[in-house]
Amino acid sequence: MSNRMWGGRFASGPAAIMEEINASIDFDKRLASQDIRGSLAHAEMLGKTGILDKSDVEAIQGGLKAVQAEIEAGSFTFSRALEDIHMNVESRLKDLVGPAAGRLHTARSRNDQVATDMKLWVRDTIDGLDEQLADLQLALAEKALEFAGAVMPGFTHLQSAQPVTFGHHLLAYVEMVARDRGRLADARRRLNECPLGAAALAGTSFPIDRAFTAGLLGFDRPTANSLDSVSDRDFALETLSAAAICAVHLSRFAEEIVLWTSAQFGFVRLSDAFSTGSSIMPQKRNPDAAELVRGKSGRILGALMGLLVVMKGLPLTYSKDMQEDKEGVFDALQSLSLCIAAMSGMVRDMEPDVKRLKRWAGAGYATATDLADWLVRVLEMPFRDAHHVTGRLVGLASARDIGLEKLTLAEMQEVEPRITDEVFAVLGVERSVKSRTSYGGTAPANVRGQAKRWIGRLQKEAKARG
Amino acid sequence: MSNRMWGGRFASGPAAIMEEINASIDFDKRLASQDIRGSLAHAEMLGKTGILDKSDVEAIQGGLKAVQAEIEAGSFTFSRALEDIHMNVESRLKDLVGPAAGRLHTARSRNDQVATDMKLWVRDTIDGLDEQLADLQLALAEKALEFAGAVMPGFTHLQSAQPVTFGHHLLAYVEMVARDRGRLADARRRLNECPLGAAALAGTSFPIDRAFTAGLLGFDRPTANSLDSVSDRDFALETLSAAAICAVHLSRFAEEIVLWTSAQFGFVRLSDAFSTGSSIMPQKRNPDAAELVRGKSGRILGALMGLLVVMKGLPLTYSKDMQEDKEGVFDALQSLSLCIAAMSGMVRDMEPDVKRLKRWAGAGYATATDLADWLVRVLEMPFRDAHHVTGRLVGLASARDIGLEKLTLAEMQEVEPRITDEVFAVLGVERSVKSRTSYGGTAPANVRGQAKRWIGRLQKEAKARG
Amino acid sequence: MSNRMWGGRFASGPAAIMEEINASIDFDKRLASQDIRGSLAHAEMLGKTGILDKSDVEAIQGGLKAVQAEIEAGSFTFSRALEDIHMNVESRLKDLVGPAAGRLHTARSRNDQVATDMKLWVRDTIDGLDEQLADLQLALAEKALEFAGAVMPGFTHLQSAQPVTFGHHLLAYVEMVARDRGRLADARRRLNECPLGAAALAGTSFPIDRAFTAGLLGFDRPTANSLDSVSDRDFALETLSAAAICAVHLSRFAEEIVLWTSAQFGFVRLSDAFSTGSSIMPQKRNPDAAELVRGKSGRILGALMGLLVVMKGLPLTYSKDMQEDKEGVFDALQSLSLCIAAMSGMVRDMEPDVKRLKRWAGAGYATATDLADWLVRVLEMPFRDAHHVTGRLVGLASARDIGLEKLTLAEMQEVEPRITDEVFAVLGVERSVKSRTSYGGTAPANVRGQAKRWIGRLQKEAKARG
Amino acid sequence: MSNRMWGGRFASGPAAIMEEINASIDFDKRLASQDIRGSLAHAEMLGKTGILDKSDVEAIQGGLKAVQAEIEAGSFTFSRALEDIHMNVESRLKDLVGPAAGRLHTARSRNDQVATDMKLWVRDTIDGLDEQLADLQLALAEKALEFAGAVMPGFTHLQSAQPVTFGHHLLAYVEMVARDRGRLADARRRLNECPLGAAALAGTSFPIDRAFTAGLLGFDRPTANSLDSVSDRDFALETLSAAAICAVHLSRFAEEIVLWTSAQFGFVRLSDAFSTGSSIMPQKRNPDAAELVRGKSGRILGALMGLLVVMKGLPLTYSKDMQEDKEGVFDALQSLSLCIAAMSGMVRDMEPDVKRLKRWAGAGYATATDLADWLVRVLEMPFRDAHHVTGRLVGLASARDIGLEKLTLAEMQEVEPRITDEVFAVLGVERSVKSRTSYGGTAPANVRGQAKRWIGRLQKEAKARG
Repeated sequence: MSNRMWGGRFASGPAAIMEEINASIDFDKRLASQDIRGSLAHAEMLGKTGILDKSDVEAIQGGLKAVQAEIEAGSFTFSRALEDIHMNVESRLKDLVGPAAGRLHTARSRNDQVATDMKLWVRDTIDGLDEQLADLQLALAEKALEFAGAVMPGFTHLQSAQPVTFGHHLLAYVEMVARDRGRLADARRRLNECPLGAAALAGTSFPIDRAFTAGLLGFDRPTANSLDSVSDRDFALETLSAAAICAVHLSRFAEEIVLWTSAQFGFVRLSDAFSTGSSIMPQKRNPDAAELVRGKSGRILGALMGLLVVMKGLPLTYSKDMQEDKEGVFDALQSLSLCIAAMSGMVRDMEPDVKRLKRWAGAGYATATDLADWLVRVLEMPFRDAHHVTGRLVGLASARDIGLEKLTLAEMQEVEPRITDEVFAVLGVERSVKSRTSYGGTAPANVRGQAKRWIGRLQKEAKARG
Repeated sequence: MSNRMWGGRFASGPAAIMEEINASIDFDKRLASQDIRGSLAHAEMLGKTGILDKSDVEAIQGGLKAVQAEIEAGSFTFSRALEDIHMNVESRLKDLVGPAAGRLHTARSRNDQVATDMKLWVRDTIDGLDEQLADLQLALAEKALEFAGAVMPGFTHLQSAQPVTFGHHLLAYVEMVARDRGRLADARRRLNECPLGAAALAGTSFPIDRAFTAGLLGFDRPTANSLDSVSDRDFALETLSAAAICAVHLSRFAEEIVLWTSAQFGFVRLSDAFSTGSSIMPQKRNPDAAELVRGKSGRILGALMGLLVVMKGLPLTYSKDMQEDKEGVFDALQSLSLCIAAMSGMVRDMEPDVKRLKRWAGAGYATATDLADWLVRVLEMPFRDAHHVTGRLVGLASARDIGLEKLTLAEMQEVEPRITDEVFAVLGVERSVKSRTSYGGTAPANVRGQAKRWIGRLQKEAKARG
Repeated sequence: MSNRMWGGRFASGPAAIMEEINASIDFDKRLASQDIRGSLAHAEMLGKTGILDKSDVEAIQGGLKAVQAEIEAGSFTFSRALEDIHMNVESRLKDLVGPAAGRLHTARSRNDQVATDMKLWVRDTIDGLDEQLADLQLALAEKALEFAGAVMPGFTHLQSAQPVTFGHHLLAYVEMVARDRGRLADARRRLNECPLGAAALAGTSFPIDRAFTAGLLGFDRPTANSLDSVSDRDFALETLSAAAICAVHLSRFAEEIVLWTSAQFGFVRLSDAFSTGSSIMPQKRNPDAAELVRGKSGRILGALMGLLVVMKGLPLTYSKDMQEDKEGVFDALQSLSLCIAAMSGMVRDMEPDVKRLKRWAGAGYATATDLADWLVRVLEMPFRDAHHVTGRLVGLASARDIGLEKLTLAEMQEVEPRITDEVFAVLGVERSVKSRTSYGGTAPANVRGQAKRWIGRLQKEAKARG
Repeated sequence: MSNRMWGGRFASGPAAIMEEINASIDFDKRLASQDIRGSLAHAEMLGKTGILDKSDVEAIQGGLKAVQAEIEAGSFTFSRALEDIHMNVESRLKDLVGPAAGRLHTARSRNDQVATDMKLWVRDTIDGLDEQLADLQLALAEKALEFAGAVMPGFTHLQSAQPVTFGHHLLAYVEMVARDRGRLADARRRLNECPLGAAALAGTSFPIDRAFTAGLLGFDRPTANSLDSVSDRDFALETLSAAAICAVHLSRFAEEIVLWTSAQFGFVRLSDAFSTGSSIMPQKRNPDAAELVRGKSGRILGALMGLLVVMKGLPLTYSKDMQEDKEGVFDALQSLSLCIAAMSGMVRDMEPDVKRLKRWAGAGYATATDLADWLVRVLEMPFRDAHHVTGRLVGLASARDIGLEKLTLAEMQEVEPRITDEVFAVLGVERSVKSRTSYGGTAPANVRGQAKRWIGRLQKEAKARG
């Protein structure tokens, strides 16, 4: 659809432009259930405090539930003329219950209402993301346990540096995801104050009970300043920040999957389910899902940046610019959810090529550090001197294009006479990873322990979730 | 809709996740007419070069036109299983014309096809934006001509600095928009090379005539390197950059409109058409359209950032990450189009409060610079000395809370004996703006001249456009 | 300095380019004290575990303290040839203590060392920022207490909506800053795991005691996965996110200060200390500090975006790209510190024009909501009907350009006969703010209570800090 | 340096904070030569128009040249108390030439002066970048010519798709850089209007000749609107946009170099000059320069975002926020210059492993498309049917883990009887690339032609540059 067509639409004048730029119902209808939940609680509070009669409250609550049912059944008609979700719901409520509907808006305004709706939505979404991330951790930890001892090259600068195990590598992501969950949990805790009752911006003279409403909606407490309550979009910014960092993690892993599934690396294989084939080149398995995860991180970063920019210049309290908080947040968090699902699927699906991993682990004198450490530990050489001796030995082997373990003891002793044949024990990759027993190190026993601890914790969590 | 629901969808397994993350038809159907245009030209070329028989070409072209008609009529069924717009069109073509459809894809691939489609779409959109921007310039220039002599305060640091005219202020935006149009035109010129015929990435062994296809599609020439042809998204990045800078301009103007319509400034009035009222405070006119223009600039910046991030780490040639180019570009350019339309509407709608503007123009010793310049020009004082004398005179007036023009000649001569009563001529705001006759200065005659020159040029352009 | 000159430098060949692009000492020397602190702890642990002799440990620690002293005294010579802070320190250590220096690097590498240094630096900086933010809160709360009852217009859409108090407005920022502090505290808590001992990436075979080192450096525990330990820059990203949101808050307040100090608003006055005058227009007080705070938020957002982009595509573990974490983090957090200092200064310095604020508070029928609420509360009208009646009364007053309180009771009763003269009590701005007693509302008693609570808490905190 | 120390500095009060936040001389001294160039031209114009006496002009110009000489000699003392480069230069000028110095500022202000300085600096820098980019193109084209026929795998999704040549791949970057140069040239052309004479914001009443000054400074013309002249930072935004896109290109290439130098790919080798070795693993060549180029793209994107954010909310004309334009632009363009230099160096330095490239080119049935094309071309099968047949043949070969060329004719004819032994000619990778003769295709003759054309053009350009 070309731009000319939009231009055409606008040609019909200000009214058309304003409807186009102003109406939010096309996207904020996604807040319908949160909006109704908020209204139910508000009505309950108005009844409890005697601001409304019991009969009005009952009528309103019955009507709201009917509206909810219509929306769920798909029979509700959203109207652009009614502009946003709040007016769409209220208008239908009036059809259903008559004048009582007009009493629902007592002691609140759209400003505190929309802030409440968005907080509820973000909170619901954080809960969903947390559950998905826990599942991703479980997938990673289970695969890590399975391959706790599978040796692979550990990289710095995409150059093989030291052998590690495949399980250990996967557990690094479990740690990252743990921090992601921590950030989301902190964001959830911090947002969990209820803006309802701040009214337009100044509070109200009605004898409302904000703590009661907050409690009904699962908030920890009401917000403490009415101006802040309707101006604040920190909860969206903070959640987007956490989402962006999480997306960066997923993108890093996706980058690795793309590398690992290349013919040159050939470290893992994804099944057809997570690859896109080519009718003509059956061996070709494009890692589309990984590429899309990597690509979508850009979109999530863009959404964070977009909302920071929107908020950055706004005086208090509500400005219409803030309507731009919705689509970016909806899209970014939904994209993140999709990426997590795809990643969990790929982790469960992937099969490492254990032989190939081990072969590459031993290439490139990856155990040179083990040799140096042996010189320090056994011969008590200063580390920098041990480095020097190791460098000479690697040079010797490299000149003849053989591995370190292929040098004879005599050859080694020419460089450093105190070397004994004990040294050969540290030159194999299996032995190397086994020796890394420091806390957090790659020794398979460590990895197995960590993986089991995570699995236990996550299964317990999942059980508690039910 | 909570995240749990997405999770639920994904629970059905890899297939559901892959369809969700992989299918692009939901958004790339917007490229339908560009896709068909490209195929028509490709078929024509295949016929011309003898690669296809004339009868095949005719069947294909007839079929493509039928598909186009179905899409325009709304009777076409887009299928997610067919993944993208290319396969949706080709599949329907096969229904309509049988095996000949299978010959259309000779000597091309989806990689060069999608690059061509996107370039055509961006090019079409640039043309629409350019037309809208020309209209915005015309609205500004016409309003500038009407208020070429209306004095208002010129600000630095949001502090009144020197008097200028309302028309002059509006013409500043005409200049900005001129640069915006220049950037879009440059982007259009630079993108106008046809990728079709690059095939998957390496070119083809068929004797195609790329220059011919390029010509049919209005491109200046074919692209020169087949790898670059399918990897390149510069055209999207450059257009988004130009859009972002344009959005910054619109946001600056929107910020001014929000300020100017505040009760404290009260510089201009927007009609009901571009304000949102309040049922309870009839005098309240929230400048919603301006706020939304300001807010949407955040989204456009986010889209630019998002795509830069996506492209930043990709090796050549096509990676699936690049599918993320579409939604951001579509949304950002459509948002920009909407913002331009809203801005043109507001400009035509706005009524400056000429009296109030003039009153504020004279406040704050805004003609102090004129006095200093008079001292330099007439008394030949060095500028820095003139500054000093002026400072003392303003101090004198300020202490008594009167304007500079209310000081007596004698009082002035106590500070600087050579001052004559000629000086009073430069102390009025009307006289001040009239004196700024340097090229580009705010003198009403200048402003009128510039406004007329722009109007003439823009009307001529519009005529040429038809 | 023009680019040609850089080109010139590079003309001398690869070596010059590599030194220029690779050496980090120009900026990472800022980590000197953190680097030495880390080495002191590492040496202590090597001694405690028996990996090094006591005499070596003493020599090393004595040498490190001497290096620290030289750096503090400004007598240390940083060398580009030694590339980074780690090698600069170690090289000087060798000069001072000889071969023992070579034993310090046992069981660690630059990868875990630099991660530790950066974490220590960020942690130190968070502590400094927290202290500054507490001071900003105190400045705000004290000013809020002073002006708890000073009525001012409360804005939505930069249009006056309802009266609030100046103190209430300032307390909104106290809440925002409280969340900022919470985010920084969470980031600090989450980063507080010690990477030291992860070695290059795989852990080590030396019998190190990571918990001991972690404890010496004030970390809560060692990191749990060695690969993650050297790949992770979450702590920088999360701190930058928190900084960006904080910068957005400061920018919003700065925007208000720029507005409020404009002649048109004239809400507050900044002293010369925080304004930049003009030699020629002595009444001009450019709010430069506020503008720079607003401007610097852009730089902080840019730094966040920059580092997200850097990390987004990196496979594990360390890549040299990660060296780009430093300058952005240093610059952004230092800029934020400067902005907080400037803002605290401005808050303490600013004098609201109480009369002017009150006059504007009453303009624009700002108490129309109070009237509507009275109709609901006293006459028990449904809110939407009350809205309608209020609208008619405002229309009546507006048509005659008088305030609502200037309508006679008879005139009011023509619209709604049940209105009594009690209604006049709610039409004054003082009365309006007094009535907003709901929790978090703008009633001066509320504001005073909140301000005092904050002051008490902050003073106690400051005392505890010492 | 910890934050506490900054806090300490600020403790000394407002004056210290304001100096810290306000003074720009620490970074804008980089504009010294542009500032003096602008003043020399302004003085010349003031003399030519008779606004200043010839003797004053001579004194001023002599003094300015003396200041320039002092700065170049390093004997100039920059003073923070004098705030910025303009006042530093003017103050020294006064020392040198006395009262005449006070006349230089006639008919200009710091607002138009700083805009002119920045434009001159950006213009100079663009010229330097363009020269560097031309050199990068030359390096690429020369290497491309050398390896025009060296077959390598062409990738999509980082999966081998079709064979291409190494030269062809490098030429893709020549095209990207050509667009980068085009963008910079367009930015240069668009910025090349002189703001000098716009004065503070309104123009001036002195009879200045702006076209004359513009000409002296190499501008095409004066700017047309004085308000726009001092508010506009488009030139910085547009140049940063072009720089960001260029950085994305360099980052993509850097990503490839990192991949190609991994042991798994082993496609190219960088010499010691552009790698960082390890004392202990002599075979390790970390591609640090490439990683840093990739990393620095993040910083450049951040700078673009930062300035867009700064400008986005500013009303006209000058606001102090705009001082934030400098450091980001300086840093980003200097970083880009460094990246280009590093990249040119790496291109000249890199040695492709031709045998390995060829071996990988043939892996993965990369000539399956050639087979399909042969079926279409020779047997006149519809493309989609040819695809199908090819798929079956690849399946056959794949099942036996042999190359397509190892199938016998009989085996092929079982799938498609019309296949003749001519088909074997298209199954070799050399033959495959030779056949891609379409314009822009990878046929070595094409590549050689394009490379020569570029080399010729670039050498001519370099000659013209002198």
